[in-house]
Amino acid sequence: MKIAMEALWEEVRELSLGNGTEIDHLNSPPTPLQFLRDYVSQNKPCLISSATLHWPALSSWSQDTYLTQSLSASPNVSVHLTPHGNADALVPFPNNTLCFASPHVQQLPFREALHLITTTENSDSNSNTQKTVAYLQQQNDCFHSEYSALSSDCDDHIPWATEALGSLPEAVNLWIGNHRSVTSFHKDHYENLYAVVSGEKHFLLLPPTDYHRMYIRNYPAARYSYSQESGEFTLELEKPARYVPWCSVNPYLSPENMEAEMSKFPLYFNGPKPFQCTVKPGQILYLPSMWFHHVRQSPDAGGRTIAINYWYDMQFDIKYAYFNFLKSIQYRSIHDPTLPETASKDTDTESDCDSIAYGFKDEFSANGSVENLAGGSTKEE
Amino acid sequence: MKIAMEALWEEVRELSLGNGTEIDHLNSPPTPLQFLRDYVSQNKPCLISSATLHWPALSSWSQDTYLTQSLSASPNVSVHLTPHGNADALVPFPNNTLCFASPHVQQLPFREALHLITTTENSDSNSNTQKTVAYLQQQNDCFHSEYSALSSDCDDHIPWATEALGSLPEAVNLWIGNHRSVTSFHKDHYENLYAVVSGEKHFLLLPPTDYHRMYIRNYPAARYSYSQESGEFTLELEKPARYVPWCSVNPYLSPENMEAEMSKFPLYFNGPKPFQCTVKPGQILYLPSMWFHHVRQSPDAGGRTIAINYWYDMQFDIKYAYFNFLKSIQYRSIHDPTLPETASKDTDTESDCDSIAYGFKDEFSANGSVENLAGGSTKEE
Repeated sequence: MKIAMEALWEEVRELSLGNGTEIDHLNSPPTPLQFLRDYVSQNKPCLISSATLHWPALSSWSQDTYLTQSLSASPNVSVHLTPHGNADALVPFPNNTLCFASPHVQQLPFREALHLITTTENSDSNSNTQKTVAYLQQQNDCFHSEYSALSSDCDDHIPWATEALGSLPEAVNLWIGNHRSVTSFHKDHYENLYAVVSGEKHFLLLPPTDYHRMYIRNYPAARYSYSQESGEFTLELEKPARYVPWCSVNPYLSPENMEAEMSKFPLYFNGPKPFQCTVKPGQILYLPSMWFHHVRQSPDAGGRTIAINYWYDMQFDIKYAYFNFLKSIQYRSIHDPTLPETASKDTDTESDCDSIAYGFKDEFSANGSVENLAGGSTKEE
Repeated sequence: MKIAMEALWEEVRELSLGNGTEIDHLNSPPTPLQFLRDYVSQNKPCLISSATLHWPALSSWSQDTYLTQSLSASPNVSVHLTPHGNADALVPFPNNTLCFASPHVQQLPFREALHLITTTENSDSNSNTQKTVAYLQQQNDCFHSEYSALSSDCDDHIPWATEALGSLPEAVNLWIGNHRSVTSFHKDHYENLYAVVSGEKHFLLLPPTDYHRMYIRNYPAARYSYSQESGEFTLELEKPARYVPWCSVNPYLSPENMEAEMSKFPLYFNGPKPFQCTVKPGQILYLPSMWFHHVRQSPDAGGRTIAINYWYDMQFDIKYAYFNFLKSIQYRSIHDPTLPETASKDTDTESDCDSIAYGFKDEFSANGSVENLAGGSTKEE
């Protein structure tokens, strides 16, 4: 099984994706047919330049005043607060085990929320002067709700993608963060068109065939609570206990934990390198359904990274059936020290490290069983 | 592994193909985008009506005289001769084992070749009055070579498929046979558009996920030789010995061998039924790459079944990588009595029960190794 699975990781690169770390780069948007034939049908990512240069947002959103004035009459927006920027991620629990931590979500006027983001940026991230990392995001079609006052600044959908995929996006989400916010490895049940408006986003990408290299294990769910008074976070396990299957791999290692992490996750660190892609203003990343992705960001001069992503329905076709078959097979190797302890936990999970939006996927049923995706927003980008 | 694989067979039907035996039926040709999105990308077959009603062939080819006059100045055509109609199929060798038998291929003037086909039809197939079954076919783009005099009677390519797939067909093949010719289960590395001009073709179809249900095993290659003098066939093993991986399952059982065959191939006979499709004049079957297919035919009033198929290059993408992964996994089950004896032989085969045309695929290399597809024409339809 070890050899078969490693051959799969290699073959998808040999045949389709390439053996390097770069993805295809198009200088202008593809036709719907090209996009469908060369990328969606093949489940293959690409970066597209000159894709959104006509959006008013590309110039007008560079000014905080434009944004705050446009949204001054809007209802509050959802801000995700964490102490270190890693919401929806694995963090150490006081007993030294890892848990899956959700952020504290607060509703604030946009002006205050934006202030939190830009002041974090201006503070020294290693000091204690700013203990709160704020990320404006809500994967619930928020661009059409909380941010509807900005809707004329961007396209409602990506025309060539809509024509190729045969329907309008299911959700359009706005993301405003700074360099301290990181989204950990996960995957989504959507075709994702990811457009950067200001700053840069840095993606690491791995195809769904690399499932076993992500070491998806069950972690106890926890949630941050932020106290305005003390300015401190507390992290509490959910009660009743809930387990979330999540990717164990953190691709960016600090010198002090590098050796330990690399020996825990050798399939990731010793296998093919992830594809890397930086998305700049005016560009769109096509991030295919079921691909594992990790996201960091660099801010613009104003200390913000702003992006919009379009989630289109994916096809649950033979590729998805093959993926589920792959998932159901255990990779057993002397190189995989984590498997013996945790394999049994994984056997019955029906979804794993998926984004959980506002119930988009609740109606999808594989083999008659509805995937258990209830339970609040989890992740994705 | 047994459970995982059976879940795959079921899930691809639940999600994408449907649980019955029917495939999608379109009343008119799809747009290129629809075809690509709903069928090619999903590796899902469909039958398309009113697809070729504008072809002059649909009326003019009903007359033998039109065909013989049009081709009277053409070079000889290739006729495949067998005693029972099963060329490129498993047949019992005198020692009571099975071999993979290729037909006797003879070059004849078209008029004589057509006469062989129509007289077979008029004879009693159960008697010995006609021992030779003739099938006009050659999977080498023969419509553009041997039959080029007929080229203005049909389209050179299928416009909506060409636009969807992004290139012209690699080969266009003509098939003229009668009810005695049967093509055994196999698969092709091509997207196949199959158009019937006269008579009917009856397909059984199984998705590539059902690989293990076909019991692909290695059989010694043999070839028929036909003696004009004696009117008899001899079947001889190739020397040096060559083994051909081929599907073991014959889906149409005679009463006397039904029980034995069903117990030898339970995964096929006890699993999901194959999809069934009859293609009539004016219709096109989209037969996706890598699907297993078995073909029978019913003749028109003149005793002939005439069809043209268009082979388009397939994409060797993530689906193909998944398929090879599936292939590399052994299905071990108490229900599979054939595996223990033959599994070792299968392990190293690089291609199996594929059509072998005139070197179309020789340049394709997976993991750096060129597939061994030399060795003469084998099958397909």
